[in-house]
Amino acid sequence: MKACNLFGVNGRLVLADKDAAATPLCTGDEREDRNFVKGLHKEIALLQEMLYAERQRKVLLVLQGVDCAGKDGTVHQLFGRINPMGLRPVRFDVPTSAETARDFLWRVHLQVPRKGEIAVFNRSHYEDVLHPVVYGQISDIEAGRRLAQIQEFERMLAESGTTIVKVFLHISKDEQRRRLQDRIDNPEKHWKFDPEDLKHREKWSEYHAAYDKAIAGTDAPHAPWYIVPADSKPHRDTAVAALLAETMRAMNLAYPAGDPKIAKLRVK
Amino acid sequence: MKACNLFGVNGRLVLADKDAAATPLCTGDEREDRNFVKGLHKEIALLQEMLYAERQRKVLLVLQGVDCAGKDGTVHQLFGRINPMGLRPVRFDVPTSAETARDFLWRVHLQVPRKGEIAVFNRSHYEDVLHPVVYGQISDIEAGRRLAQIQEFERMLAESGTTIVKVFLHISKDEQRRRLQDRIDNPEKHWKFDPEDLKHREKWSEYHAAYDKAIAGTDAPHAPWYIVPADSKPHRDTAVAALLAETMRAMNLAYPAGDPKIAKLRVK
Repeated sequence: MKACNLFGVNGRLVLADKDAAATPLCTGDEREDRNFVKGLHKEIALLQEMLYAERQRKVLLVLQGVDCAGKDGTVHQLFGRINPMGLRPVRFDVPTSAETARDFLWRVHLQVPRKGEIAVFNRSHYEDVLHPVVYGQISDIEAGRRLAQIQEFERMLAESGTTIVKVFLHISKDEQRRRLQDRIDNPEKHWKFDPEDLKHREKWSEYHAAYDKAIAGTDAPHAPWYIVPADSKPHRDTAVAALLAETMRAMNLAYPAGDPKIAKLRVK
Repeated sequence: MKACNLFGVNGRLVLADKDAAATPLCTGDEREDRNFVKGLHKEIALLQEMLYAERQRKVLLVLQGVDCAGKDGTVHQLFGRINPMGLRPVRFDVPTSAETARDFLWRVHLQVPRKGEIAVFNRSHYEDVLHPVVYGQISDIEAGRRLAQIQEFERMLAESGTTIVKVFLHISKDEQRRRLQDRIDNPEKHWKFDPEDLKHREKWSEYHAAYDKAIAGTDAPHAPWYIVPADSKPHRDTAVAALLAETMRAMNLAYPAGDPKIAKLRVK
């Protein structure tokens, strides 16, 4: 079954009902699974070279998920085989004062992919309909307005030749506990640990309710959301690679036609 | 022998005297050589994580070389194992009008690495003392002034915690002919071919004379140049990895000390 169908949202979502530990794309045979994801990365690398050679269209992959969901790890995996010159990771941290002085889409717009490029957003404009909602910093009206603004922004990007794929890396509360505890137990990982993560964890259900709303409210044919079960790291990496490969396959990419004028040249 | 000694410039340079086909870091045993470079990448990945964890210092790797010298390929190789969130490739194309409206260091300054980051420049501010010199677009006085400006700019970066490594990928005129001809003979590679490359090739010795001057004039202990024989792609990748590993080893990186306050936490 296609990953796009398997993980699609179709406008409705209750994350709490989704099994974060599922591994529908893995066989359990480690070697076979590794070869499958290797094949997908090879295919993405080829499609990316065609995208780059064509220099007309763009791809935007948005990664969201709670702390420890594996956003960094996913980006890292993708770079194994793909030419970094055509794949640009973008991390959205806490906004700077220059950023908060503008609308929330301003810093996002600055980072959209250029022709021939795949941009991977590690967090994104969706942060602005999560944290402020959970902590009551914006009204329901403002939250609804932002969702509509996101929809229009993404529509504009799509109409300007950007293929958008949005992925929520779905981990269970138990798995997050294990990963946080691991950062605590290993002094060499303390630098990865942010006490804020524990505060966010206390608001687990509020965050997931905000995600339900944000994802269901912005799922669209031109900017679909996918919920990827991510307790298993191998499954997470396979699923993201499969989604990206399927999406790019559907773009019908090809190398530009050879130029007959060039074909005759002899280099001296 | 250390790669830094092997490929160092020490303030004097005649590129024409350097053997582009040399492979001092390769044994010729393909398997052994591959394992060696794999080990270097693993080491760089670890050092990079420490650099990122520390978030104090920065690394800047500058890659220069004639067309087809393998700058893109080198960047691609480096990303095999290293976390892309801490390694940022920057390509400097033909300047835009917004860029030419400023001094030549303006667009470069915008892209310098941030704390914890390795930035890899695919071309750089050195383009501005090559092309304009070869085509007589700037006077000797202006060229000398630019070299001095580059020196001061790099000194400022170094004084602000940036470790700089500059690499010239050295290929022979014959090897460039083979690579250009390959782009012409393979229609799927026509998109990589730029007729301008043939014009630059006609000025081979002028470009190399400009490189001699630019490299010798900006080689400094805080921003050393290395000439890497790059006719052999495996040797090129090994040498660049070795230079980066040696340079970062000398930075005495380590994970930040564990925080005793964190160590006692239990995640609920």
